[in-house]
Amino acid sequence: MNNSTNPAAPQSEGAAKEPLQSVQWAGDHLSLLDQRLLPEQIVYLPLTTAEDVWEAIRHLKVRGAPAIGIAAAFGVYLGVSGAEGDVRHVLDEIVRKADYLATSRPTAVNLFWALDRMKARAEAVAVRSGVTAEELKAAMLQEAMLIRAEDEETCRLIGEHALGLLADEMGVLTHCNAGGLATAKYGTALAPLYLAKERGWNVKVFADETRPVLQGSRLTAFELQQAGIDVTLICDNMAGMVMAKGWVQAVIVGTDRVAANGDVANKIGTYSVAVLAKAHGIPFYVACPLSTIDLGTPTGAEIPIEERNEQEITEGFGKRTAPVGVKVFNPAFDVTPHEYVTAIITEKGVVTAPYEENLRKLFG
Amino acid sequence: MNNSTNPAAPQSEGAAKEPLQSVQWAGDHLSLLDQRLLPEQIVYLPLTTAEDVWEAIRHLKVRGAPAIGIAAAFGVYLGVSGAEGDVRHVLDEIVRKADYLATSRPTAVNLFWALDRMKARAEAVAVRSGVTAEELKAAMLQEAMLIRAEDEETCRLIGEHALGLLADEMGVLTHCNAGGLATAKYGTALAPLYLAKERGWNVKVFADETRPVLQGSRLTAFELQQAGIDVTLICDNMAGMVMAKGWVQAVIVGTDRVAANGDVANKIGTYSVAVLAKAHGIPFYVACPLSTIDLGTPTGAEIPIEERNEQEITEGFGKRTAPVGVKVFNPAFDVTPHEYVTAIITEKGVVTAPYEENLRKLFG
Repeated sequence: MNNSTNPAAPQSEGAAKEPLQSVQWAGDHLSLLDQRLLPEQIVYLPLTTAEDVWEAIRHLKVRGAPAIGIAAAFGVYLGVSGAEGDVRHVLDEIVRKADYLATSRPTAVNLFWALDRMKARAEAVAVRSGVTAEELKAAMLQEAMLIRAEDEETCRLIGEHALGLLADEMGVLTHCNAGGLATAKYGTALAPLYLAKERGWNVKVFADETRPVLQGSRLTAFELQQAGIDVTLICDNMAGMVMAKGWVQAVIVGTDRVAANGDVANKIGTYSVAVLAKAHGIPFYVACPLSTIDLGTPTGAEIPIEERNEQEITEGFGKRTAPVGVKVFNPAFDVTPHEYVTAIITEKGVVTAPYEENLRKLFG
Repeated sequence: MNNSTNPAAPQSEGAAKEPLQSVQWAGDHLSLLDQRLLPEQIVYLPLTTAEDVWEAIRHLKVRGAPAIGIAAAFGVYLGVSGAEGDVRHVLDEIVRKADYLATSRPTAVNLFWALDRMKARAEAVAVRSGVTAEELKAAMLQEAMLIRAEDEETCRLIGEHALGLLADEMGVLTHCNAGGLATAKYGTALAPLYLAKERGWNVKVFADETRPVLQGSRLTAFELQQAGIDVTLICDNMAGMVMAKGWVQAVIVGTDRVAANGDVANKIGTYSVAVLAKAHGIPFYVACPLSTIDLGTPTGAEIPIEERNEQEITEGFGKRTAPVGVKVFNPAFDVTPHEYVTAIITEKGVVTAPYEENLRKLFG
């Protein structure tokens, strides 16, 4: 390896900035950061109707399971905030708007979870004696704000627990985007980095660009830069060299699903990073809420891996960069076996091996 | 890991096709494959003058050290083929054209080597008693064809030696492009794959796309596909998953420089592939001519690593995909320590550890 200067030198930004928030209630409307335009443009869309929210979810202006759920919850409120009529009528409207919003992204589990919760809350409030239509509508806003607040608190707790594994001046590598943009605030893997910044620590982050869709480049590098956190963008294939140079003391990533034995499914490339981390003696941490741990899935072998469109690789940026007709393998995720996972960090604390036993305890 | 079908299934192409040749003598002109247009267009440029060749080298229509050297050698001949006058005058013209061609790419070592060889040959022929100007010009064509033939033979020998390490139906992963496009024919790392195809073997190749400049996608996948070899394009970060699935039995790459202790400098990402190969018990082979082994460089630590323009990462596809102002680390190469190298394959045979000793023997 050569002696080139570590690029992760302090940046000019001094004070911690607030992390970008992708979904915020603005008093009378939902303010949504249009993620399709990132990183080139920061545009907040004012959403005032359930139809606005449906359209935003459908057209990927909002992404990240928690953020989608939050947006949909506010969408229910926006859908009934102007409704006339009695409690019975407003309750019917709530159910109708929730069912309508559920059609925006038919595979988003978190979306259904949030909408079911809104409906259940509405039904619980509507049966109270003497409740008014206005009170029912107010309860919907309150519930949406609660969903958002709970998500923020979950992420903050994950961040607090993860922070105990990091230290000032550390180099941290992350893959893909498990950040504030996907959640109410803070994110999962990125949460400790925001909290470290709040404490005045200078953590040096390396963000893998994350081919083929470049979430690391478009989102992670962007949101950390916005928060004044020291971030250096690299191509995925540079992770090994950056580790060999001694610039990385911890890897932290998010996950789409954790199996009962601690195997971790996450964005394609995560497994390669885990193997590289182990070869360099660097701890490999996975950050996620309890809701991502699926004790019903025994091992990673049972997690289905979606294969995506080959155009993401052959012409990912509006320009063909591979020969026509070439065979392509484009898995969206990979599975990192639990033996590569140093710890799983949840809102309830840090779990280490044996995962089979210790993950179960977490729920027990 | 899931059970998705191995995409490296036999392709429809049956018979072996000739590998693409980037630089060919066409009787009265040089036929050059314009590599800037690959993989979208296959265009052979007819070069008839030294100026044509200078322009082709300068504007990267030809790339790869051996291919550049070959093109330049033919450029000298084209520059004097129509020259009038006596032997003395033609010799002066040869030197003038060679010096002119040397200005096309001031850092290309192979270019200078080929031009010096042409000048030395010209001087050796010119002093022969009774030699004519026409004979001197003919000697220049002969020497250029010899340089080309020697390069082809070197690559073929590398391929033969490497083939002894492979077998029919094997999965082989390669990174970047060390193929026929960069040489007279066959390439280095890709040479055994062409020879395997000639023998009717069905080797299944996985080509890393090789960010940031995508040589694997644009060139390796392209030239193997053209030759009817079974090739599957993957993103660099998928190499680990493909290995974990058991689809790869050997990794083979080229190199820009091998140090005396066997450390290998090659395209960024090679080191990550080597670490992954070791973790999966897969042999990691490096193919190169003897001229790439530099006994004057004790270890990889002494090999300077060029850092390239950050735009290759932030807007490599003609479209910005990273936030403006983000820090970027973009090394062009990395160094794979010799302990990861299973064997180095040269035209003189296969070298294994201890490299310090065995590489020296190769030259002895």
